[in-house]
Amino acid sequence: MQKAEIIAIGSELLTPDKIDTNSLWFTQKLNEIGIEVIMKAVVGDDIELLKQAINSALKRSDVIILTGGLGPTEDDVTRQAVAEALGRKLIFNEEVARQIKEKFARMNRQMPEINKRQAFVVEGAVILENPNGTAVGMFIELNEKSLAVLPGPPRENQPMFEKDVLPRLGDSASGVVFRRRLLRVSGMGESAVDEAIAPIYSKYENIRTSILFNRSEIEIHLTAKAKSQQEADEALEKLASEITEKLGIAVFALNGETMEEVVGRLLKERRKTLAVAESCTGGLIGARLTDIAGASEYFLLGVTAYANEAKIKMLDVPSELIKRHGAVSAEVAEAMASGVRKKAGSDYGISVTGIAGPSGGTKEKPVGLVFIGYSDETETKSFKVILPGDRYLIRWRASQAALDYLRRKILHKEKI
Amino acid sequence: MQKAEIIAIGSELLTPDKIDTNSLWFTQKLNEIGIEVIMKAVVGDDIELLKQAINSALKRSDVIILTGGLGPTEDDVTRQAVAEALGRKLIFNEEVARQIKEKFARMNRQMPEINKRQAFVVEGAVILENPNGTAVGMFIELNEKSLAVLPGPPRENQPMFEKDVLPRLGDSASGVVFRRRLLRVSGMGESAVDEAIAPIYSKYENIRTSILFNRSEIEIHLTAKAKSQQEADEALEKLASEITEKLGIAVFALNGETMEEVVGRLLKERRKTLAVAESCTGGLIGARLTDIAGASEYFLLGVTAYANEAKIKMLDVPSELIKRHGAVSAEVAEAMASGVRKKAGSDYGISVTGIAGPSGGTKEKPVGLVFIGYSDETETKSFKVILPGDRYLIRWRASQAALDYLRRKILHKEKI
Repeated sequence: MQKAEIIAIGSELLTPDKIDTNSLWFTQKLNEIGIEVIMKAVVGDDIELLKQAINSALKRSDVIILTGGLGPTEDDVTRQAVAEALGRKLIFNEEVARQIKEKFARMNRQMPEINKRQAFVVEGAVILENPNGTAVGMFIELNEKSLAVLPGPPRENQPMFEKDVLPRLGDSASGVVFRRRLLRVSGMGESAVDEAIAPIYSKYENIRTSILFNRSEIEIHLTAKAKSQQEADEALEKLASEITEKLGIAVFALNGETMEEVVGRLLKERRKTLAVAESCTGGLIGARLTDIAGASEYFLLGVTAYANEAKIKMLDVPSELIKRHGAVSAEVAEAMASGVRKKAGSDYGISVTGIAGPSGGTKEKPVGLVFIGYSDETETKSFKVILPGDRYLIRWRASQAALDYLRRKILHKEKI
Repeated sequence: MQKAEIIAIGSELLTPDKIDTNSLWFTQKLNEIGIEVIMKAVVGDDIELLKQAINSALKRSDVIILTGGLGPTEDDVTRQAVAEALGRKLIFNEEVARQIKEKFARMNRQMPEINKRQAFVVEGAVILENPNGTAVGMFIELNEKSLAVLPGPPRENQPMFEKDVLPRLGDSASGVVFRRRLLRVSGMGESAVDEAIAPIYSKYENIRTSILFNRSEIEIHLTAKAKSQQEADEALEKLASEITEKLGIAVFALNGETMEEVVGRLLKERRKTLAVAESCTGGLIGARLTDIAGASEYFLLGVTAYANEAKIKMLDVPSELIKRHGAVSAEVAEAMASGVRKKAGSDYGISVTGIAGPSGGTKEKPVGLVFIGYSDETETKSFKVILPGDRYLIRWRASQAALDYLRRKILHKEKI
């Protein structure tokens, strides 16, 4: 089996505030084609140390991934360190320089002089285009070893890796493949999930199952090891089906989809539309839904009625209702859901009203109290939940609960 | 200045699911006593690789912190790797064995035979007690270098480090402290910022300046080295002021605040209120603003008018305007900003309408084209921008541009 090493570059990654998270994604991608990551390193913007790290890695690993340090400023030393470590020259590439200039021109800006530094590439390297930034990547082959030099931001290095690095590594990888699959579960705890499915997954010796809690859902990570992708995928498919049969509607994603993707797909397939009324989540549900390309097909309107007047004026919530029950109540949640649905003329309306904290809680209405509303043509409902966590988690969990409520309603109605 | 290196041990830290986070805390503690972390590594449960990592670290660093791999099972190889790397013996320590047995007895359990492995210690090491687990730590001094060997769990290694490692390093530390500061800049590129401030920061020999691009802003990280906190803070304050004087209003945060925190503070201090009309950002601006506790003091209403009908009905955008100029236009952005302001009865209204992609772009109106609107009692304005990046980045950058527009408007009006 081939061995890989990932080196993250940047002095900011050696401070108490920042950590290299790039390597997680690269590890997954490498594992999928049967390459094992045997070591990771973080090095500051220091040519000598970086050269040492590259040379050590070349001694023991077949594939070396470098990320970061390709910016235009003086502390970006990766280009030079790679060239020196390999004993090669740095060469100014006119075509790369032209492309960088063009990228600036498209933003109506002139290329600053120092960005020219980004046009230097290591002699003999394949140049990897970067559609999302000015730093090009490099792929270098030497003595059956591969060195990929990529920029730091995931939005830049991930597309480059998928498009231009992976295909080049695939050729040389070993006879074992790893394939992964991620199921997501809502409305159950970590141990309940484990108790329910341990008898199932423990039968699969070639699949590693790990169960993780993530914000408000349970993730079931399956990693299959097999001789071919097909064999691995078949085993994963079989285990995933058994798990889904056992857990039922609680499994909301079979291939790592997010809740907003799942809800979006359900609406799109059924040609249904949605409007959302938010209070404590402040637009988070709308932002999550519209993060998905094509959301305009089903998402019509979001109203974040933070102030009471906004609830009354924009969502037709009767002021009487707020006076009698308070803005955080089942009654107001329902009025918001049906109000926004009617305003938008959509098939569904969902709503959230609650107390995200850290202040604003009382004994009767504590921080974390949230009402989720739902409305369609035939019914308007709500439920109450008390969510644990800080402001960030309460808001995120409330947005998840609202989307999940809609998902379950849509699916339940079809079963009846 | 002393140099440190942190090595995290454990094969699980080389999977796509887990990351070494221990090193953040250790970095902070080391920095506080003037020791700089120059490199970090993650190594699996592999004696040979671990020996290599330890030997490399000993060559370049004064302090080496190892965490993990001290458990009782066979894959816990740290003890042996350290002994072999240093050419020392592993010695069975009766007293440690007795203490481990006692810990089990206190839980009414018998010590499993394999836990005896945890009683082996490296010849000549100071044994560090672990009140929260069975694995003892070790502190080894050699040739003016220090090696601390600690268990993996933070609740075990942190108390041990504070009580038994720090005081031993303190003796040899240099009486130097590090202090950090983060400035954020909008509306300028990385290289433009560097060109403008390099003549300033290069005068400060005891402050390391690094300039990073992060989504749509530039971060200026300053790390000062001095004999006391006060001295370091004064130097940082002086440099930060000089930078701010040079870059002016482009510096939006002097202490690492986010744009939504800055805008929130400006509104709160002035007792002004805001309403937001969003199209392509889908609620992201509202979600960011309300992520700040206490946002209800100034954020009244957010309307995500994704559909044209919603723009007309909820924001009073004249349908004529949409027909004539299209939903993505300066005219509609302005009508949205003033519409939402009037609906909410707020002091300010801001808006975004644009094409986030990946589809929906045309030659005249390409993906990334975004209009930002602004409205107050006296004027309604807009500006056009073409944002690079994928859907996620375009949306994030549009939200940032809108918040920044408001920030600049508020500050400019006060200057006049």
